[in-house]
Amino acid sequence: MKQSKFKKIVIFGVGLIGGSFSLALRKAREVDSVVGFGRSEQSLANSMHLGVIDRIGTDVAAELHDADLVLLATPVGQMAELMSRIGPHLGTRTLVTDCGSTKSDVVREAYAQLGDKVAQFVPAHPIAGAEQSGPSAARADLFQWKKVVLTPLPENSAETVARVRHAWELCGAMVSELTPSQHDEIFAAVSHLPHLLSFALVHDLAQREHRDILLSFAASGFRDFTRIAASSPEMWRDICLSNREALHKELQLYIAELTNMSSALESGDAAKLEQTFRAAQQLRAGWKMQQ
Amino acid sequence: MKQSKFKKIVIFGVGLIGGSFSLALRKAREVDSVVGFGRSEQSLANSMHLGVIDRIGTDVAAELHDADLVLLATPVGQMAELMSRIGPHLGTRTLVTDCGSTKSDVVREAYAQLGDKVAQFVPAHPIAGAEQSGPSAARADLFQWKKVVLTPLPENSAETVARVRHAWELCGAMVSELTPSQHDEIFAAVSHLPHLLSFALVHDLAQREHRDILLSFAASGFRDFTRIAASSPEMWRDICLSNREALHKELQLYIAELTNMSSALESGDAAKLEQTFRAAQQLRAGWKMQQ
Repeated sequence: MKQSKFKKIVIFGVGLIGGSFSLALRKAREVDSVVGFGRSEQSLANSMHLGVIDRIGTDVAAELHDADLVLLATPVGQMAELMSRIGPHLGTRTLVTDCGSTKSDVVREAYAQLGDKVAQFVPAHPIAGAEQSGPSAARADLFQWKKVVLTPLPENSAETVARVRHAWELCGAMVSELTPSQHDEIFAAVSHLPHLLSFALVHDLAQREHRDILLSFAASGFRDFTRIAASSPEMWRDICLSNREALHKELQLYIAELTNMSSALESGDAAKLEQTFRAAQQLRAGWKMQQ
Repeated sequence: MKQSKFKKIVIFGVGLIGGSFSLALRKAREVDSVVGFGRSEQSLANSMHLGVIDRIGTDVAAELHDADLVLLATPVGQMAELMSRIGPHLGTRTLVTDCGSTKSDVVREAYAQLGDKVAQFVPAHPIAGAEQSGPSAARADLFQWKKVVLTPLPENSAETVARVRHAWELCGAMVSELTPSQHDEIFAAVSHLPHLLSFALVHDLAQREHRDILLSFAASGFRDFTRIAASSPEMWRDICLSNREALHKELQLYIAELTNMSSALESGDAAKLEQTFRAAQQLRAGWKMQQ
């Protein structure tokens, strides 16, 4: 299906993710005007200055009724309030997508806050790193060859999903589709759990009196294992709570795995340890990140 | 103290570590002759071909009586047998050092196997990455600016410790000293536990029927967290068993930490999660690897 240009896009949260979305569509010359909303006046002014957005929004109602697409790029914890703010003002042809790292919770809020207009919302999760943040870190190629997962709703029309998919594809992303619960189970296992485990290890060490001595001997294995423990505490608090059911399930499985390994250590079970390590080593050594 | 050149060094296990030690001393022109022993004829022949060693050893007794320094660079699990083989043949002026990642266990074996000659053994742990292995991966600068921990024995004379320290410093290493148990407690926390946790996560996923789908969505956080799960299963089996007491203690503390986080998740305790993540984030973001 031939897709037309976006006349007007409105972005809530013009940081690394929201800003990069804007830059990508502008670079592709597929959007006429990008309006940004955000909580920090200074950050929005900086976005204007950097050419990330065309205008700073001041009146939500006025900006939304004729917008083609709205991007919700705020932290997951702010999504409910944001949806309640925009819901009443969405134009009949305005589509909405988001950038939340969890989906079941966001979808639940969308049903609660958007009412009938939930059909206009196509949930998305762009899987793009976020070591830096803010509009000055935004770049047009952030999503190039990165995965974006859509979790369409039964209420979405095929055209609506295709249009939102098109926007993400214009950013250079590889778009796939999952159900919200499939999405949350997968990311609990491969993203949320590892983050929680990395935070837990560093927190464990942070409690020790001689932590500085411990850290002075830490080498590259520790450095890589704990890189994600330098991530934003607020963002990960929100993600963990938002996906707490799937994450709790994964955490129980992992604690059971550690309990097994603890028994193997105690009994000096060399075969069990080697077998466990080998299964892991074979899977990990044969894996290549697809993005 | 002015240190003289090493006339003859004998290396058991001419791989990445043993080979790099040889190359570093040869590059510094501080050794006349390096003799290599190993379990693979082909690997030893390759070492000769690459100029890593001068000669392949065939007679342990003949080579050891006039050696200045012996380097034990085999896996920790082979150390006891190796010590029993070399003990009877060490010259009265021959010093011994090793490269084991654990120290209490190696020291225990040294007392058992070397008898009176234990005074000639200065245990060492060079903290140098080992993503590749074998003599072809060896390089003269592997230990440059890397830490080497010595865990001297009460039986070592000051001169003996100074001489072994000198050899490692010639490799460009920064040498520090700890007791064997200090060493093992520190490395259980910052190295052995993270390795075990990383293996455990990948093993956990390896058991799932839909592991390929899970892995297809794994991104850079997972990649870095699990990099060390591609390490050698045999080597880590040996290290975990060799340091099982300290490692088991660390693992219990970590399981307790996860149990706390599991409760916080269950009860939706946002403050507890954020506090934990923030303490970790602050420590990790402020840390720089010293080597």
